[in-house]
Amino acid sequence: MNFDEAQVIATLAQIFGSHHSGVLIGIGDDAAVVTTSPQSVITTDSAVEGTHFNTEWSGAFDIGRKITAANLADIYAMGATPQYLVVAVTLTGDESMEWISDLAHGIQHEAASCGTAVVGGDLTRGAIKVISITAVGSVEKITTRSGGAPGDLIYISSLPGWSAAGFSVIVNDGADDLEAYAIEQFCAPSVDYSAAVAMASAGASAMCDVSDGLIIQAAQMAEAAGTSFNFNKDLFTNDPEFVALSELAEKCGIDVYQWIFAGGEDHVFLATGRDLPGLCVGEVGAGTGVTGLEMKKAPDTWRHFN
Amino acid sequence: MNFDEAQVIATLAQIFGSHHSGVLIGIGDDAAVVTTSPQSVITTDSAVEGTHFNTEWSGAFDIGRKITAANLADIYAMGATPQYLVVAVTLTGDESMEWISDLAHGIQHEAASCGTAVVGGDLTRGAIKVISITAVGSVEKITTRSGGAPGDLIYISSLPGWSAAGFSVIVNDGADDLEAYAIEQFCAPSVDYSAAVAMASAGASAMCDVSDGLIIQAAQMAEAAGTSFNFNKDLFTNDPEFVALSELAEKCGIDVYQWIFAGGEDHVFLATGRDLPGLCVGEVGAGTGVTGLEMKKAPDTWRHFN
Repeated sequence: MNFDEAQVIATLAQIFGSHHSGVLIGIGDDAAVVTTSPQSVITTDSAVEGTHFNTEWSGAFDIGRKITAANLADIYAMGATPQYLVVAVTLTGDESMEWISDLAHGIQHEAASCGTAVVGGDLTRGAIKVISITAVGSVEKITTRSGGAPGDLIYISSLPGWSAAGFSVIVNDGADDLEAYAIEQFCAPSVDYSAAVAMASAGASAMCDVSDGLIIQAAQMAEAAGTSFNFNKDLFTNDPEFVALSELAEKCGIDVYQWIFAGGEDHVFLATGRDLPGLCVGEVGAGTGVTGLEMKKAPDTWRHFN
Repeated sequence: MNFDEAQVIATLAQIFGSHHSGVLIGIGDDAAVVTTSPQSVITTDSAVEGTHFNTEWSGAFDIGRKITAANLADIYAMGATPQYLVVAVTLTGDESMEWISDLAHGIQHEAASCGTAVVGGDLTRGAIKVISITAVGSVEKITTRSGGAPGDLIYISSLPGWSAAGFSVIVNDGADDLEAYAIEQFCAPSVDYSAAVAMASAGASAMCDVSDGLIIQAAQMAEAAGTSFNFNKDLFTNDPEFVALSELAEKCGIDVYQWIFAGGEDHVFLATGRDLPGLCVGEVGAGTGVTGLEMKKAPDTWRHFN
């Protein structure tokens, strides 16, 4: 063991120590006490060593950023604003204080980028590292997955697939600029949270965080709404990043649509409505199911099962 | 793998499906939406296989109950009432559907005993099982750890030590009635949540959930309040359970005060004030530190480090 618990908790409390006006009692008591709005949004998401991250590929800062982003994106996908996080961390005891501190700084960095405060946590020991975060936010007008109606258009906030591309490139040991960008997006995606706010403000009828891949998430939204989601593959080529992603896919010998349609983990927002910001890629219709997301090859086995 | 994710999620959603009036949107969207009070309490606590539980000793139902109790007790220890839980579960893939279902039923059983609803979760795979729960509750009058003032008396809601006793007995392969009771308390303690409500209602100046052992928790309360916590060892013998616990300790060749003072995990409530319900075991004084909790033998290495 390279650290003792008291030392770790003191370090974490310092890194997470914030002056968020809503925090009445922060780290150090049995629980945190915070001010909340009449309607709150709650979500939880974990990152497990060997499944979601690997310390050979990702530094602790990026691991912290990525799992925090997954939670924040889920809050924004409800049309809500994140306020508070609690963080449960399982460590093996072999971590250095520097690694733990980097992890906490990554969490804090991503949280602070949304004005969100880490208000509590739990530290445990186990055979592998696991980081479980719960995010609580406030919401006035809820945007669910189920509101898409026939005639609505389908929008994405940006082109998905960069995280999946990064995973392919890491496996292939790639390293030019484009490859480095993709690896960055795999290790810790740059999530445009403001895009979700903009989509909700523009009156999105439904919204979802594309964490498990566009096909899966579109199918969930279509089923929830009792409609069909009909994509037009050609419209994805209008995204300014399409050329670069295609170039990388060709280099890797992969159908670019496999990354775009089945990649996941970019935390792009998928929304339905009229005149929304983002790229229009299809239309909601009568019937059921998803059309237009065909790939040359079936998706690989999922990188993980959540 | 004995199950697929969709099957597990469907089973969990059914077990956790509740009709809690505060739940606007439950399991199945990016996040849950719930009604919250102006002041909310948030805590998170994890149970890790090989550290907090062991499937040879504990059934899935008890594992679920125990980690849920740990979270609920933290909420009650703030003078608050738990409302919502989210549950992040890491499974190895070797679990049977029956085991997973039992785990969920244990969580649901303990949650329902407090009128609390499971509103969301996350399912991931990893090399070991990990259950991380976050509880959110409402509070009007907060009871922190730091309010004890010289002249206050110190109360416990019941005699701690049974969980530690159960751990000793399991290791010793014991099995008579008293031993079976202790093992039960180790596998899934019977927490008297109403005792915390009663202590808070009676005007407790400070309160804490004794999850890490009386010595540790009393020291934290004393430090937070800038006071000393002075216990009278003889007063513990007034507890109606003292004789039974002593008998068991003698049989195990252990100083009973080692279990009572250093055991932990019973989730007994420790509070300060005047005329509180529970057993009076000492007095808050000037100065610092904890007196009166001496044992014949130093505590064993902690069973875990959280």
